[in-house]
Amino acid sequence: MMFDKATMLLKVDPLILSALEEDITSEDVSTNSVMPKKTMGEVDLICKEDGILCGMQVFERVFTLIDDRTEVTMFCEDGKEIKKGELIAKIRGDIRVLLSGERTALNYLQRMSGVATYTKQVASLLEGTKTTLLDTRKTTPNNRIFEKYSVRVGGGSNHRYNLSDGVLLKDNHIGAAGSVKKAVQMAKAYAPFVRKIEVEVETFDMVKEAIEAGADIIMLDNMTHEEIKTAMAYIDGRAEVEVSGNVTKENIAALTDLGVDYISSGALTHSAPILDLSLKNLHAI
Amino acid sequence: MMFDKATMLLKVDPLILSALEEDITSEDVSTNSVMPKKTMGEVDLICKEDGILCGMQVFERVFTLIDDRTEVTMFCEDGKEIKKGELIAKIRGDIRVLLSGERTALNYLQRMSGVATYTKQVASLLEGTKTTLLDTRKTTPNNRIFEKYSVRVGGGSNHRYNLSDGVLLKDNHIGAAGSVKKAVQMAKAYAPFVRKIEVEVETFDMVKEAIEAGADIIMLDNMTHEEIKTAMAYIDGRAEVEVSGNVTKENIAALTDLGVDYISSGALTHSAPILDLSLKNLHAI
Amino acid sequence: MMFDKATMLLKVDPLILSALEEDITSEDVSTNSVMPKKTMGEVDLICKEDGILCGMQVFERVFTLIDDRTEVTMFCEDGKEIKKGELIAKIRGDIRVLLSGERTALNYLQRMSGVATYTKQVASLLEGTKTTLLDTRKTTPNNRIFEKYSVRVGGGSNHRYNLSDGVLLKDNHIGAAGSVKKAVQMAKAYAPFVRKIEVEVETFDMVKEAIEAGADIIMLDNMTHEEIKTAMAYIDGRAEVEVSGNVTKENIAALTDLGVDYISSGALTHSAPILDLSLKNLHAI
Amino acid sequence: MMFDKATMLLKVDPLILSALEEDITSEDVSTNSVMPKKTMGEVDLICKEDGILCGMQVFERVFTLIDDRTEVTMFCEDGKEIKKGELIAKIRGDIRVLLSGERTALNYLQRMSGVATYTKQVASLLEGTKTTLLDTRKTTPNNRIFEKYSVRVGGGSNHRYNLSDGVLLKDNHIGAAGSVKKAVQMAKAYAPFVRKIEVEVETFDMVKEAIEAGADIIMLDNMTHEEIKTAMAYIDGRAEVEVSGNVTKENIAALTDLGVDYISSGALTHSAPILDLSLKNLHAI
Amino acid sequence: MMFDKATMLLKVDPLILSALEEDITSEDVSTNSVMPKKTMGEVDLICKEDGILCGMQVFERVFTLIDDRTEVTMFCEDGKEIKKGELIAKIRGDIRVLLSGERTALNYLQRMSGVATYTKQVASLLEGTKTTLLDTRKTTPNNRIFEKYSVRVGGGSNHRYNLSDGVLLKDNHIGAAGSVKKAVQMAKAYAPFVRKIEVEVETFDMVKEAIEAGADIIMLDNMTHEEIKTAMAYIDGRAEVEVSGNVTKENIAALTDLGVDYISSGALTHSAPILDLSLKNLHAI
Amino acid sequence: MMFDKATMLLKVDPLILSALEEDITSEDVSTNSVMPKKTMGEVDLICKEDGILCGMQVFERVFTLIDDRTEVTMFCEDGKEIKKGELIAKIRGDIRVLLSGERTALNYLQRMSGVATYTKQVASLLEGTKTTLLDTRKTTPNNRIFEKYSVRVGGGSNHRYNLSDGVLLKDNHIGAAGSVKKAVQMAKAYAPFVRKIEVEVETFDMVKEAIEAGADIIMLDNMTHEEIKTAMAYIDGRAEVEVSGNVTKENIAALTDLGVDYISSGALTHSAPILDLSLKNLHAI
Repeated sequence: MMFDKATMLLKVDPLILSALEEDITSEDVSTNSVMPKKTMGEVDLICKEDGILCGMQVFERVFTLIDDRTEVTMFCEDGKEIKKGELIAKIRGDIRVLLSGERTALNYLQRMSGVATYTKQVASLLEGTKTTLLDTRKTTPNNRIFEKYSVRVGGGSNHRYNLSDGVLLKDNHIGAAGSVKKAVQMAKAYAPFVRKIEVEVETFDMVKEAIEAGADIIMLDNMTHEEIKTAMAYIDGRAEVEVSGNVTKENIAALTDLGVDYISSGALTHSAPILDLSLKNLHAI
Repeated sequence: MMFDKATMLLKVDPLILSALEEDITSEDVSTNSVMPKKTMGEVDLICKEDGILCGMQVFERVFTLIDDRTEVTMFCEDGKEIKKGELIAKIRGDIRVLLSGERTALNYLQRMSGVATYTKQVASLLEGTKTTLLDTRKTTPNNRIFEKYSVRVGGGSNHRYNLSDGVLLKDNHIGAAGSVKKAVQMAKAYAPFVRKIEVEVETFDMVKEAIEAGADIIMLDNMTHEEIKTAMAYIDGRAEVEVSGNVTKENIAALTDLGVDYISSGALTHSAPILDLSLKNLHAI
Repeated sequence: MMFDKATMLLKVDPLILSALEEDITSEDVSTNSVMPKKTMGEVDLICKEDGILCGMQVFERVFTLIDDRTEVTMFCEDGKEIKKGELIAKIRGDIRVLLSGERTALNYLQRMSGVATYTKQVASLLEGTKTTLLDTRKTTPNNRIFEKYSVRVGGGSNHRYNLSDGVLLKDNHIGAAGSVKKAVQMAKAYAPFVRKIEVEVETFDMVKEAIEAGADIIMLDNMTHEEIKTAMAYIDGRAEVEVSGNVTKENIAALTDLGVDYISSGALTHSAPILDLSLKNLHAI
Repeated sequence: MMFDKATMLLKVDPLILSALEEDITSEDVSTNSVMPKKTMGEVDLICKEDGILCGMQVFERVFTLIDDRTEVTMFCEDGKEIKKGELIAKIRGDIRVLLSGERTALNYLQRMSGVATYTKQVASLLEGTKTTLLDTRKTTPNNRIFEKYSVRVGGGSNHRYNLSDGVLLKDNHIGAAGSVKKAVQMAKAYAPFVRKIEVEVETFDMVKEAIEAGADIIMLDNMTHEEIKTAMAYIDGRAEVEVSGNVTKENIAALTDLGVDYISSGALTHSAPILDLSLKNLHAI
Repeated sequence: MMFDKATMLLKVDPLILSALEEDITSEDVSTNSVMPKKTMGEVDLICKEDGILCGMQVFERVFTLIDDRTEVTMFCEDGKEIKKGELIAKIRGDIRVLLSGERTALNYLQRMSGVATYTKQVASLLEGTKTTLLDTRKTTPNNRIFEKYSVRVGGGSNHRYNLSDGVLLKDNHIGAAGSVKKAVQMAKAYAPFVRKIEVEVETFDMVKEAIEAGADIIMLDNMTHEEIKTAMAYIDGRAEVEVSGNVTKENIAALTDLGVDYISSGALTHSAPILDLSLKNLHAI
Repeated sequence: MMFDKATMLLKVDPLILSALEEDITSEDVSTNSVMPKKTMGEVDLICKEDGILCGMQVFERVFTLIDDRTEVTMFCEDGKEIKKGELIAKIRGDIRVLLSGERTALNYLQRMSGVATYTKQVASLLEGTKTTLLDTRKTTPNNRIFEKYSVRVGGGSNHRYNLSDGVLLKDNHIGAAGSVKKAVQMAKAYAPFVRKIEVEVETFDMVKEAIEAGADIIMLDNMTHEEIKTAMAYIDGRAEVEVSGNVTKENIAALTDLGVDYISSGALTHSAPILDLSLKNLHAI
């Protein structure tokens, strides 16, 4: 599981370039002060905290974008559990390149591994149930492609990618259309026919309307455990069911007995702390 | 304290545009399905968790970039404490614009307020001391301008912005130069003369060398409380002193009695959870 | 029906800018030779051929991007039938702006109206049936947003926008997966859950497999009238059905009695001739 | 005859990238669902309709931009007549790359071959005359570089590339200057001296004025056969002569006996249907 | 004489933005330190050296791009002689904007005025002759649009804008073609027909060949006064004649008696010193 | 001393690309007319004027960006004195590439060598003193990275790179703050702590204030020789001292006896004439 060539070219490379531009206005002054010439060296990528590794391809690409002769030898791959102290990879190349790319490469890797680690912790609480863990669009601006990937690496699944590729009718859409039924009809008429139609509901009445309107997916938003149960009984397989509303690893356990198809959690991408990794033992070779 | 016009034009607008592009490949299908025409409406920005507000200018810009006739009336400004349930602002404009921009605007505001809130908590632990709290370059890729600003709003100060505008000589630079003294000399000769020279040291011997070499700032990295004390006594005002090494709000208290000039913490930007805010009560007007 | 503000900002404006850059390397030499200063003028947009009007918003935007004080007064809107000789709009502004933007504005308007006109002709042949006319991804490079819109204006519907927002499993995907069933399972596991799964089939056996695998949509590709009938009888409402394969306005009539849900036609976007429109009667005011 | 390295770098690559971005928002979901890893394969490019091949370099570049290890073996080159069923090329590489690039590559190749084929048909009607067939600026937005090339491949010649690199004084320019003579003088004074000055005329009086003013080229716009004859007799070699006005392959024959230097036709680029080509027989290797 | 709206949008604005990005990585730290809020002010643009003013539109645009409410009141226009001490304009707006844009605005204005001033000095030496002064492609990278305009403002004319919009056959082209005659024929066949064909020659034999081949323009490169005379006598009006070769204001006088049509000088754009102008008397209002 | 890989990727390549786009709208018409196919050739880079060589890496990159198989063999490196007639390098590759890139490559090399040559002349006048020669921000728009590098190659040093990476408090900043003391305090509080604080002063009173306020650097602007002496005596090593004000190679000698730390000169970058170099002896191989 990794980004394919087209995604790298079109989505990943431009974002890495932009991230490098944040960090280098003109040059790496410290490095160029003391290293006027190319010097070959090697450095170790070390894990400093237990967790799930994620983002090695992006980590590597930061260095190879700067200098395609940089070589990253990986001893571990995305999705694996890693332990404090573990050697994850060796990076070999011009030391000036290793130093210039270090921070950007780690910023990506730590954040992606952080999301994967947190997702894994939450997803493991759903093991043995039929419920799938989903992310949301509550991602860090200009990091969605990385964070949605990290969720998959951590064992979650992706909800729609963005506003253009999924239909989710919320209260405001329903209000504008006049009724749940009207909204679903309008969406079916307008949206590309390959889209499923999802409706967000907050009351039992809306659940009924949504089912009658032929919604493909019903999102039960901020409902109580009891309300969800009632809704599930009524829906009875006639639509897929997603539960949402401030779900975190602290509170998801309470939702595991409901038999819903999906639980979505914004926390996976907006509040996971990073996983600590660092470059050590740089030496000339 | 907010971004000036030049920063908005050159740095903020392009990043917001790129973030919007992540979220809209072709159009907002859900909204356009049910609202084929412009309809004026208004929505409330509500605080859902106590914290420090940060990012209102960016929040507003997301909407005005899409449609410059959107109006945001703010009842609070960056840096203020806000309470759960508080009304922060009202946004008025074409409802389709409000819905298309909602997620991107909130993603920025929640993250920036999260960083400011966390920073405030850490900075408050330094109150009454002469020590200033600093951020690092451990920022989220393509979000540095926002996160460094949020640190300032939360009461912290900024370390160098990037690799080009500050000199920080680490072990690898020192190794390449041959000695601390040599590295400082080379940096003074090469770097624009307006730069201060900072040296990262890990042992008492390196502290001595750095002082003798005329370093402007000495960063004591991952030293024990005792080691820092010894170093401080030796330095005795001949250079500014920064302490670093996995500083968080849980452990910073232990450093407050040392009298160092600066403490830097990567956690301010890489591990602050978001602050929850949301748009509510959308209605046509 | 028109592009909303977000789509204009993110998708339409950059493409218009790029199109203008094709046409102006340094300046409009002819115009600047004879008009060193701003001179206000007005010009008429005239229809020179019967058809369906499409692209007025893009036409206008070409001029207002160059100079936001240009005014376009429209006497007709997208989707309307227009007649040879009809006055469609008046454009008023700096004559230099009218002349510099003329060709690019017309190139868009003629092409979009051409696609809408052709689509209308094809769609009208499906009137009275339950079959919806669809476009494909066979669009002109860097013109998809305009051509897919023109299809809707002409009375057609859109298939998926691109490779990222719809799942369509073709023979090669099925081959890679090992079987239709396996491919559908893998797609359900991998793709964002809001996607319907469409399978392209060429034989009756594949139809059966696809139905058994739970495909949401089945595309019958290049099948004979008889084969389609057999397939329809077997499917019997268990999946939506799309028919495709070199469908044009010359041959679509033969498919109207089949009761399929969708017929897709690449010709709508790849082979529609333009509709002739031009600017006439420019005069100073 | 093909794009040189500089044109590829500066003009072609950016447009191909932009076209690929239209088609891939995040990833090719269908392909990645069933092919998590690189698998080498090969596919045939087959001609499905008789015509003139054009655009092989662009076709190839779509794949090599995504993955420079993709290999395209061509059995035919631009400008050649191809027959239905003919094998044009074999493409070998990662199957995921072949599938992701297929549509964009074919969209370019089909359109370019369509323009070349149509141009060839029109140009062949001028064989044996001294008249050269020209294109116009009525090209598809963001496709001019491809369409003007295709016209050359089809046996036509190019008129000016854009507004900056040729002077063509139309009625509005003449009106602004005050007279044909004045317009020509102003253009000679203002335009870079390497430009020829072309004047568009609609009446015999304007022809006379243009000749007297020293125009290098006279464009006879929408004149009758008789009017053109009269103009030609008067001009008598003192300027080059271009005839224009809705010229298509249906009506160009009527103009072949006039002895004009150039006939320009917008239809070459704005109304040529595509030539059908497709990828077949994909298989792993 | 100034840039029109299309040129501003497509060519000037992007270059100014890029120039501002050079000067502002994150923010104007000095200004923001002491001016946390908008303060309205006014500053004078003063001439510090006699010369020709050029670039006021670009100067103004730097400020209005940052903040469109900035107002520039001009007391003088491009092309006018200005004297040391003269007040050229007043700029009124947010002082932070005035300070942030000052350097970039002056860098453009000083350089453009420098080119116009130098050009005027050289052009005045050709007064009373029939010879026109031309620039070359020896412009500063990413400043061609500004420098070619400045040449016109200073009384010179423009040679071709770039490699795409003029044909100039040099020794290498002639060598590749086989002969002058062959090269001219190939260029006539390949280049858009609106191009004149210019041939660069270094010997009298080449002059003859070029005339026989029907070249429109002949460039006599690095010939002696005597050689030019001989060439002129031979050419005798059958082609336009351009003289080139390290022409500066120091040596151009020697060429004024030759009666050539054009003299081109790279020095106009590559070696003109700047004209000193500065902002003075900033005060709050 | 040369640009490292990161600077090339992030800063140099985009500017070269943009410069090439200025010169090639569609293609190099002259070259493509006579050379339809790749032909290998070689050309010499010859020095035509004594000076300091600077910019070989940029010169080479112009060609390798267009075609990475172009080979540049250098016989000399940046910083070396070169003599009229000297062979500097041989460039080997597709002749079409050599011709397309020639002008852009030379425009960079000539300008950079011109700046280095002029800087060397000025810097040599400071030899034997303790004074360092500095550049300013008076650089050519979109050429700062090249010009600041050329100053270093010529033996000068760089002042701050831009508005974001150095603090320089001028009269307007001081006015806004209220006093020199207040301005320095505000800058110390706001600016990243790694910045030195420089204050520009014009009177002796301001010198005193600046020293008392703890400024790190004092810039004596447009002071007389006598005033500078008085200031130096007062400052007496408590701050670094920079002298500025229309310094050129004609007048710098008068400042050499003052013992100031730095003298800055805008002329280094804004008024250095180019150094003449050219490509000669192109031949097929």
